[in-house]
Amino acid sequence: MPIQRFRISTDRRHQIIDITSQVQEIVRAVGCDQGLACISVPHCTCAVYVNENESGLVADMLALLSQLPAGDSWRHNRIDNNAEAHLMASLVGNSTCLPVSGGQVELGTWQRIMLIELDGPRERRITLTVVPG
Amino acid sequence: MPIQRFRISTDRRHQIIDITSQVQEIVRAVGCDQGLACISVPHCTCAVYVNENESGLVADMLALLSQLPAGDSWRHNRIDNNAEAHLMASLVGNSTCLPVSGGQVELGTWQRIMLIELDGPRERRITLTVVPG
Amino acid sequence: MPIQRFRISTDRRHQIIDITSQVQEIVRAVGCDQGLACISVPHCTCAVYVNENESGLVADMLALLSQLPAGDSWRHNRIDNNAEAHLMASLVGNSTCLPVSGGQVELGTWQRIMLIELDGPRERRITLTVVPG
Repeated sequence: MPIQRFRISTDRRHQIIDITSQVQEIVRAVGCDQGLACISVPHCTCAVYVNENESGLVADMLALLSQLPAGDSWRHNRIDNNAEAHLMASLVGNSTCLPVSGGQVELGTWQRIMLIELDGPRERRITLTVVPG
Repeated sequence: MPIQRFRISTDRRHQIIDITSQVQEIVRAVGCDQGLACISVPHCTCAVYVNENESGLVADMLALLSQLPAGDSWRHNRIDNNAEAHLMASLVGNSTCLPVSGGQVELGTWQRIMLIELDGPRERRITLTVVPG
Repeated sequence: MPIQRFRISTDRRHQIIDITSQVQEIVRAVGCDQGLACISVPHCTCAVYVNENESGLVADMLALLSQLPAGDSWRHNRIDNNAEAHLMASLVGNSTCLPVSGGQVELGTWQRIMLIELDGPRERRITLTVVPG
């Protein structure tokens, strides 16, 4: 089952985008009935996670970033002013795995697959690896 | 290999439950000798992680929640008073992957598979996806 | 495809080690063209993540630990003085999954596979589970 890819353009420095419909469309096209899907990004300043797409919660998730101390305290900011983006991406993670059942990713009622952009705007690539069960 | 499921009832708002024995029993029944197991939850306010089941540490893990600022600062709490549960679940993650070897999940000496309930009491579903290596 | 293992000796209490070349060498030897690789540790006080190997950022990632409150506030420290190591390991995670393509782990330009030692020095084991796509 070949690895699948798609792209998303972000338009703000910090932004969360629901990528569930793109992922489901690709998984259906791949034709795997049962298995495991890994959604990953080949980037160091964005991440993926699975949670509810509610506008207040999306704002709260981005506000978590401001819990990290201010920029001058990070060494990486002497090179490139995006240390918080790298750190938050490392905590959230650059990949997530979900079951595939009946030819699509199995999600709970409120679960959505979310891309969190922490150093945009940029064009981001998402990789979808499906392995049969 | 069909996806497996089981349920756990939590009885407190914040609680950590060791689900290792249930996971191991199901993996043995599935009959996969070598491969990968993904343990996931179809929920947005609980999570799974792998660490030691020591009562002090379990209390500490729940106490990490209190490191997040108080409730009024989160927008999602205007809709449903559980923003911290969503945020902590997004940081810990709703799935974890482990090797399967010799027909069971391979864990280190002190490792246990833990369900962290952040908005209970509720009945929680756990999904186990095993793919052969 | 049998599970693969290798060892790394750490020499400080807190340390981050780039394990990308060891992982790539093993994946090439396994001979899986397309699939999924899971890199995991059978330990409770170290973790794995994927991000940039830049010396300032590596120091920043370790400095994140100091954002957790001081030792006396954790119950686990009455038993073993490493609660922060367990907590940080639980947040970062003891495993990460990446696509395998063309016989090796597919990484973005700046991505590296990093082992974070939080309670060294110790000899650490890394497990590599590859499943075909």
